[in-house]
Amino acid sequence: MMNQRRNFLKGVLAASSLLAGQKLFASGKAIESTQSAFNTFNKDSFVTPNVMKGMPIRATFLDEVSWDIPHQNWGVKDWDKDFLAMKKMGINTVVMIRSGLARWIAAPFESILKGEDVYYPPVDLVEMFLTLADKHGMAFYFGMYDSGKYWIEGKFQKEIDLNMHLIDEVWKKYGHHKSFQGWYLSQEISRRTKNMSKIYAEVGKHAKEVSGNLTTLVSPYIHGVKTDQVMSGDKALSVKEHEEEWDEILNNVQGAVDIMAFQDGQVDYHELYDYLVVNKKLADKYGIKCWTNIESFDRDMPIRFLPIKWEKLLLKLEAARKAGMENAITFEFSHFMSPNSTYLQAGHLYERYREHFRI
Amino acid sequence: MMNQRRNFLKGVLAASSLLAGQKLFASGKAIESTQSAFNTFNKDSFVTPNVMKGMPIRATFLDEVSWDIPHQNWGVKDWDKDFLAMKKMGINTVVMIRSGLARWIAAPFESILKGEDVYYPPVDLVEMFLTLADKHGMAFYFGMYDSGKYWIEGKFQKEIDLNMHLIDEVWKKYGHHKSFQGWYLSQEISRRTKNMSKIYAEVGKHAKEVSGNLTTLVSPYIHGVKTDQVMSGDKALSVKEHEEEWDEILNNVQGAVDIMAFQDGQVDYHELYDYLVVNKKLADKYGIKCWTNIESFDRDMPIRFLPIKWEKLLLKLEAARKAGMENAITFEFSHFMSPNSTYLQAGHLYERYREHFRI
Amino acid sequence: MMNQRRNFLKGVLAASSLLAGQKLFASGKAIESTQSAFNTFNKDSFVTPNVMKGMPIRATFLDEVSWDIPHQNWGVKDWDKDFLAMKKMGINTVVMIRSGLARWIAAPFESILKGEDVYYPPVDLVEMFLTLADKHGMAFYFGMYDSGKYWIEGKFQKEIDLNMHLIDEVWKKYGHHKSFQGWYLSQEISRRTKNMSKIYAEVGKHAKEVSGNLTTLVSPYIHGVKTDQVMSGDKALSVKEHEEEWDEILNNVQGAVDIMAFQDGQVDYHELYDYLVVNKKLADKYGIKCWTNIESFDRDMPIRFLPIKWEKLLLKLEAARKAGMENAITFEFSHFMSPNSTYLQAGHLYERYREHFRI
Repeated sequence: MMNQRRNFLKGVLAASSLLAGQKLFASGKAIESTQSAFNTFNKDSFVTPNVMKGMPIRATFLDEVSWDIPHQNWGVKDWDKDFLAMKKMGINTVVMIRSGLARWIAAPFESILKGEDVYYPPVDLVEMFLTLADKHGMAFYFGMYDSGKYWIEGKFQKEIDLNMHLIDEVWKKYGHHKSFQGWYLSQEISRRTKNMSKIYAEVGKHAKEVSGNLTTLVSPYIHGVKTDQVMSGDKALSVKEHEEEWDEILNNVQGAVDIMAFQDGQVDYHELYDYLVVNKKLADKYGIKCWTNIESFDRDMPIRFLPIKWEKLLLKLEAARKAGMENAITFEFSHFMSPNSTYLQAGHLYERYREHFRI
Repeated sequence: MMNQRRNFLKGVLAASSLLAGQKLFASGKAIESTQSAFNTFNKDSFVTPNVMKGMPIRATFLDEVSWDIPHQNWGVKDWDKDFLAMKKMGINTVVMIRSGLARWIAAPFESILKGEDVYYPPVDLVEMFLTLADKHGMAFYFGMYDSGKYWIEGKFQKEIDLNMHLIDEVWKKYGHHKSFQGWYLSQEISRRTKNMSKIYAEVGKHAKEVSGNLTTLVSPYIHGVKTDQVMSGDKALSVKEHEEEWDEILNNVQGAVDIMAFQDGQVDYHELYDYLVVNKKLADKYGIKCWTNIESFDRDMPIRFLPIKWEKLLLKLEAARKAGMENAITFEFSHFMSPNSTYLQAGHLYERYREHFRI
Repeated sequence: MMNQRRNFLKGVLAASSLLAGQKLFASGKAIESTQSAFNTFNKDSFVTPNVMKGMPIRATFLDEVSWDIPHQNWGVKDWDKDFLAMKKMGINTVVMIRSGLARWIAAPFESILKGEDVYYPPVDLVEMFLTLADKHGMAFYFGMYDSGKYWIEGKFQKEIDLNMHLIDEVWKKYGHHKSFQGWYLSQEISRRTKNMSKIYAEVGKHAKEVSGNLTTLVSPYIHGVKTDQVMSGDKALSVKEHEEEWDEILNNVQGAVDIMAFQDGQVDYHELYDYLVVNKKLADKYGIKCWTNIESFDRDMPIRFLPIKWEKLLLKLEAARKAGMENAITFEFSHFMSPNSTYLQAGHLYERYREHFRI
């Protein structure tokens, strides 16, 4: 493992030498540039030789029925403005993280309201997001309902049934939107959990069937050092164990999942590349597209959570690029990367991102 | 209990049916409306049939000598602007949460300074808030000093004596302000605590006597699932136990307390209505006015605390309306609902609130 | 101890009497002033008699390779603007808190990159900060590399060697900047830790030798009630124990350290003065300059960390003034006191500070 990590780091440095033409460090250039740039700093001032290119982010989650991220209380006009900011940054796909969690639901779904103790929602977020996606020419993926209890208590079939009916209702009601282009299987798992893959398989297949084979996406996480489980004493999965468990899971969900986008924040930065390489290998084996879910919040700080440092984001985007990820989706733009975010650090991250990619 | 919860939820849905005229869900309307509203979103776009009316908020605490909310470092001009924003939203009463906590005091009170190890304050917040309340035509309630130790160590009489002298000093010094219209008994309790009701009784009666019978307010909390005590292993009080304990407490404080405003954030959203109904019943029995103290911060998030999600606030305002609360005070406007707040989520909550109530 | 604390508090009150000319409290003045100032509040409205003068802050840390403070994602133009804001407030010295921590480094240092598993940094922060310090006429101190492991594992010589080579490289590469005026020994300790003073001694001496005797600074902390260690059960050091341990440490580092700036946030506000008096006494004994490192973030809140309340900052600045501190450096301006901070409370703190000092 340590060797592999060293290799990734050395790979970066080697690339740097090439890019900078024999000159590894920026000192000469930087000193010169400051002479003339004294009062005219630009986006390249003090940037080191461009070692890391990174890959661009083309998708984001929409975290409105949230688990641990405080709400921004945006109305439709705020969202309209934020979709525009997404587009400017190159995002073309929005994924609603879930259509409900426990008692909270994103729209008045009859199939949920009639049997579950849920709160009647004040806004139809599905209609709103689809309308905005239509307007801005983006693709929208619909996230499933997460009961927050049935699948945790082992009642997998109940969780499946609820989502089967929800899919039927949603497709009938919202399927006419041209932006409705995919489904997101929202239950998040990190390892082989008895029958969880059954949810992915059954729900995913049904969603594809009713919708003329629209794309399905999952976003699991790596059982790594920054998971709550491991921080509480559990052992992290090695790269090899990760590969074995996910080989089995992906085998179980064949035909139901089109895209796999592992969350990238539960392992340390220098570990990420190795896990991504395995993810890509597995995805190729099962004919699945391999994206990375790049977290734009910072897991390393006592405030849980604020926007991530640009340097960290870039490091992860570069690991993803080198590992051959086919696309990047972020969790999530509106809190952590948007110029409209109530966390003002996000707006600065947006600026750094756009400077780097010359957008 | 579950039955009661189901009943509240069903009540909401029944009301919805009536309001929406046989049509429970907004789909048809929403889809139509998006055709024309494509580029002209307004505050009603995507709003579901107006199931929840909620009740308006007419009062707020002022949390300047704070326990767990970081300070905004506002000067008098910032406060002036914020009182204006309160007024715009319909707030007519401000309640200073306390005049001191342990070593920190809100103004240079001679009666505290002479015997207690407190810091001499740089600003006279009492004079400032009264002046602003005068200017903006609002009522001001003065919150008592909380030693942070005497009543916790069982020295109830010491806590009472300090506040008796403080009341005398404060009424003499600040009582001329036309906005000085009440007293807030700031010690917060959740259940029968030996002799705590004695503080309410003695301090409350004295405050009323010296001031020509001005109004007195208390704001206890429910010993529910979101209290630190219960989250640390203690058992939550059932609705029945809550009723029994508070029946006894209110019996002890008769004549000393005019308004009771229970904090609404320590129980789950679907539990709230049942507790509020009991609070109203008890208040009626003892001839006390029953308000709700609606918390505008979010207790469900790892960041403790940022502004609450509008959907949650509305749900609580609706439970309060249905339970017959006579008024709503929030904890508190300036951090969590204000367009001037340093938490920008608060400004968006202010917008959602004003849209909902057509202000 | 309690007597000492009482003495400090009484000292403040006595000073107050003198300053306010026999009149301890502001009541009369405040009430009068509100008559005319009703619509014309100014910065003195409601300010109590000016008991606490406090001392001005003339230096700040730059916390870019951060341990526990989330990043603001500023580019060079943001920093340029922030240096300007510092200058306006009277700051003339910036201290880079560290040039690296574990895998993160502030610039592409060859001496670190060649042997350590570190990430290649996207920006040369050293060149950037020096250029800005040149431009704004400020002094810059360079903070050492903190491996985050060697000195913790007892490998002191490895930590020393890394920094010896780093100093050579840095002085050669950046020493030409006129603003390069000092070195900061960044390892933070609170008490006698075997061999830690050896790091200060060897690294400090080498830095002075290569650079023509530039100033060296350390910023230890007091082993007080707000340290993580003591909050986890360890015993706080009494003032006497603190004096004894630091007497020994300072004896060990003679000739290597020019300025000692203890962090002021780990003890309670009323305890601070006593510790500062001892610090000054020790500094005088060893011919060291004694600064205070005034923390501008709030350690008393559940959100760790947001800007401190102005009242608390002023109390600490006054304790520092009375104890004879020769200068004050803050940790740190850009997050917690700046009008450009993404924490908007910081901008208000900046306003309060400037009002108080008539800047």
